[in-house]
Amino acid sequence: MREQELIDRVVSSFDGAEDPRLRHLLQASVRHVHALLREVRITEEEWATAIDFLTAVGHKTDAWRQEFVLLSDVLGLSMQMISINNEAYANATEATVLGPFFIEDSPEISLGEDIAGGAPGEPCWVEGKVTDTCGHAVAGALLEVWEADEDGYYDVQYPDAATAGRGRLRAGPDGAFRFWGLTPTPYPIPSDGPVGQLLEAAGRTPMRASHLHFRVSAPNYRTLVTHIFVAGDSFLAGDSVFGVKPSLIKEFVRQPEGTRTPDGRELEGRSWSRVQFDIVLAPAGRGAAA
Amino acid sequence: MREQELIDRVVSSFDGAEDPRLRHLLQASVRHVHALLREVRITEEEWATAIDFLTAVGHKTDAWRQEFVLLSDVLGLSMQMISINNEAYANATEATVLGPFFIEDSPEISLGEDIAGGAPGEPCWVEGKVTDTCGHAVAGALLEVWEADEDGYYDVQYPDAATAGRGRLRAGPDGAFRFWGLTPTPYPIPSDGPVGQLLEAAGRTPMRASHLHFRVSAPNYRTLVTHIFVAGDSFLAGDSVFGVKPSLIKEFVRQPEGTRTPDGRELEGRSWSRVQFDIVLAPAGRGAAA
Repeated sequence: MREQELIDRVVSSFDGAEDPRLRHLLQASVRHVHALLREVRITEEEWATAIDFLTAVGHKTDAWRQEFVLLSDVLGLSMQMISINNEAYANATEATVLGPFFIEDSPEISLGEDIAGGAPGEPCWVEGKVTDTCGHAVAGALLEVWEADEDGYYDVQYPDAATAGRGRLRAGPDGAFRFWGLTPTPYPIPSDGPVGQLLEAAGRTPMRASHLHFRVSAPNYRTLVTHIFVAGDSFLAGDSVFGVKPSLIKEFVRQPEGTRTPDGRELEGRSWSRVQFDIVLAPAGRGAAA
Repeated sequence: MREQELIDRVVSSFDGAEDPRLRHLLQASVRHVHALLREVRITEEEWATAIDFLTAVGHKTDAWRQEFVLLSDVLGLSMQMISINNEAYANATEATVLGPFFIEDSPEISLGEDIAGGAPGEPCWVEGKVTDTCGHAVAGALLEVWEADEDGYYDVQYPDAATAGRGRLRAGPDGAFRFWGLTPTPYPIPSDGPVGQLLEAAGRTPMRASHLHFRVSAPNYRTLVTHIFVAGDSFLAGDSVFGVKPSLIKEFVRQPEGTRTPDGRELEGRSWSRVQFDIVLAPAGRGAAA
């Protein structure tokens, strides 16, 4: 009773907030966090440990590393936010987390060119078509794609930071697109900080299922932020940020060395893979992400 | 439905945590924070703002300033933790927040001596008796007391950090105690950081109601951490950390200059005040704090 009375007092202390949305967010936060403390009957020592943990997360965060985003990711909160802001719409392709490695203004390539930019890994031919939910082509849709190399790192994680493993291209008048990338491989999220310690204490892996990122946009359509995942990958069920959706798992068909490539590219005795990803965009204004 | 399914997946990802209490705490945290995001239909921009806020709180925190504790305080979470860990017991004196200014091993004084140590402020005679819930004296109970000076600062907030406004003393064989302190005055919690900005955006005051801190301990009794507040103080209803309980509000009776002091101390023409605070300790093991 004393506990509930306290919650009421704290909630009403925010009655004077001028911005009604801020007031709502703060009051709801107060109610839920107090409910949590009451439900678990938090001890003083546990609360002190929680404060120390948040402090360590804050101190690990700098211009190059966002440990709070990582925490949000491994608690499934980032993915929850994506779900809330991208409600399912007809047969539109599902969204998943943006992740910390997206960069605006990646290098522009023409249809069929290579985004690898020297990043090590097995070549992968990616093709598909961008349509609306009725199957009509979305001519000239902008596709931005990015991925880790076979060592598990994005270009921005290297000290020299030369752009690699990312690019932007435009679908043709028929909505079709194709490019060379790398066959995705699994990699761990940064685990040398407090979030890594949390995962270890919880017996969870820091590994992400192998994936290739897409951001697809066109006027009058909801911008789609998603990945495609590799069928058969060992981390599909245990993806550390809960990004996997069954509809986003695709067959990356392995091609032994010497197999002829779709565009006649000579791969000098290397194996490669190919995948098809047809993308369906929802109309704008339907729970669109910012 | 998708949102609930995600919560189930995140909750079960913690099934493998070896420590069952850690597992319970993490799973309950996941459920409550996801419920919060769903209830408010958090937007991407709002979530980014929340991440930025927590980052700022982390970066404000150092060896001298704990902004997360301050955040816990102004959201009433510290007080909630006190309520949870100090359940009401018979007529035992109620607990309130410890605050960030307690220090172990404060200077020892004898009964009737002064804890001010040169801190500026109006002298205040404090007296009372420590008993158990049946009214029997708790002989030799240890009282640790601390307070801000009339400028609103604790000793540790000054660069030179000479000890002042704090001390420890032992109740007599009859449980009685008495000492000189300072008449408490209101002061703001540190408001030059993100928590201060939050209070401002919410139209809340950073002021704390005037108070004097006590920690009272004796073998076989629950250690009591509490304050007494000044009846008539303007911030009793709006105390920024929700520490006020009606039973802890006491009459600090003002004594005009020249009024004779209880111990014959000569105050050289200054006014002073006096307050009585009788303390009732609960037996140990009754929802005792750590």
